[in-house]
Amino acid sequence: MASAFDPEKARVPPALQLPKPPVTKASHADPSMTADKERNIAHARKAIEDAAGKGAQLVVLPEIWNSPYSNDSFPVHAEDIDAGGDASPSTAMLSEAAHRLQITIIGGSIPERCGDRLYNTCCVFGKDGKLRAKHRKIHLFDIDIPGKITFMESKTLTAGENPTIVDTGAHLLCYPGAFNMTTGPLHWELLQRARAADNQLYVATCSPARDTSASYTAWGHSTLVGPFGEVLATTEHEETIIIAEIDYSLIELRRTNLPLLKQRRGDLYQLVDVQRLNSVLN
Amino acid sequence: MASAFDPEKARVPPALQLPKPPVTKASHADPSMTADKERNIAHARKAIEDAAGKGAQLVVLPEIWNSPYSNDSFPVHAEDIDAGGDASPSTAMLSEAAHRLQITIIGGSIPERCGDRLYNTCCVFGKDGKLRAKHRKIHLFDIDIPGKITFMESKTLTAGENPTIVDTGAHLLCYPGAFNMTTGPLHWELLQRARAADNQLYVATCSPARDTSASYTAWGHSTLVGPFGEVLATTEHEETIIIAEIDYSLIELRRTNLPLLKQRRGDLYQLVDVQRLNSVLN
Repeated sequence: MASAFDPEKARVPPALQLPKPPVTKASHADPSMTADKERNIAHARKAIEDAAGKGAQLVVLPEIWNSPYSNDSFPVHAEDIDAGGDASPSTAMLSEAAHRLQITIIGGSIPERCGDRLYNTCCVFGKDGKLRAKHRKIHLFDIDIPGKITFMESKTLTAGENPTIVDTGAHLLCYPGAFNMTTGPLHWELLQRARAADNQLYVATCSPARDTSASYTAWGHSTLVGPFGEVLATTEHEETIIIAEIDYSLIELRRTNLPLLKQRRGDLYQLVDVQRLNSVLN
Repeated sequence: MASAFDPEKARVPPALQLPKPPVTKASHADPSMTADKERNIAHARKAIEDAAGKGAQLVVLPEIWNSPYSNDSFPVHAEDIDAGGDASPSTAMLSEAAHRLQITIIGGSIPERCGDRLYNTCCVFGKDGKLRAKHRKIHLFDIDIPGKITFMESKTLTAGENPTIVDTGAHLLCYPGAFNMTTGPLHWELLQRARAADNQLYVATCSPARDTSASYTAWGHSTLVGPFGEVLATTEHEETIIIAEIDYSLIELRRTNLPLLKQRRGDLYQLVDVQRLNSVLN
């Protein structure tokens, strides 16, 4: 059962000269999303300004950044994004900051109210401050590991219906997510490295910082992964900003090194909708 | 860039009481596949007998176990599996051993000759010694990282046309593979943990032992991964046998804990055949 394999080294094998992008970090004193939405918005605005001041051109916020992550809080902090203005102070701030700072903002997510439904929604704003995309989380997070963690987003939230692709000039999968102390160590880094390696592109994740006093304790560890599945930059679990350079030429190089996409055999694969299959069978 | 995150611990987080299956290991003196096919067959027979003697009910051999892994060797060591008997001494041994020892054997792979084509082929034999399945590797391994590793299976081998599902009573993905010193540390453990976590089932991999004098140096590290992506048993890079128990009830438990399959939205996914798309566009 013992192994000489050190997965820490597996991230960046010494044999391969992977680029070391410039990484800048800035720590912030106050990690947690609070019940005070105005304070959360001011806090996020300050962090965005810090990142832009350090040269960031694309800023990613974490999942549910304007509210505590709890089914009780979602309805209280939810905003009517489509109505905009005073009905959505969180996205109004994102739009204003993107325009003023001339950056693209992938606005993590906030609870969205639409009619009598709630969604877990990510808004993307361009340098002109305009809403470029609105993504409603498609795969809600339902987990039940008795004695460890139980959380059912589906109790309060409705799943979105559409994948979202935004042309920001960035070739990356962007995932604002809030894993927890059970799924975090098991799956957070694993899944983002797998998505990057399978698709040979960049994956950027942004998690809320860890707040052990919160009912839902986020794992933290926002990370940038390169097209070989290698970790290029990662945070601790404390609140911080990391700024890393993404070299898109690396994507083409990796796809030449290992032509996975050309090897795909879509003619042999079948897509099975397990959920619908189950509903037909049961 | 520094991180307190220790991925070694991420395999089996202390918070979750993951089962520790009984693991038995046996080392063998002579690791490498040689140019002497008869010797390789005798060596594999001995290892199968050892594993069965220790209680193994299903035995997995590595990729290309009867031949050196090289495009020069494939044609020399290839066998006509369909003709059987003297035309395929490697599979004849597997069949005889499976029957005599009353075990299932997933026979890694050997170069298969069929007409004027060569395949990288895995044969599965049941307890009755009968061939249960023959799988021809679908995604050939072509890699070109100048100065590090270049290998083109497609120079000598033809890709198979069918995925293979065998009902052995085992709920696992079984992958006899030979990663190398570049892709091994980057991708070997990552990909098997990702497949296990995404599909919530067991993944068993079997690699040739590492032979640094071979033209193609295998990474080693045969591994069993559980349905949360956790490493349950793994080898070093030396030749050895590990025997681990697979608890299938864990699959159902994990699928209850995290109902990923129910969350799938096959209605929203599109399958794109990139290879065919490219050939149409170019």
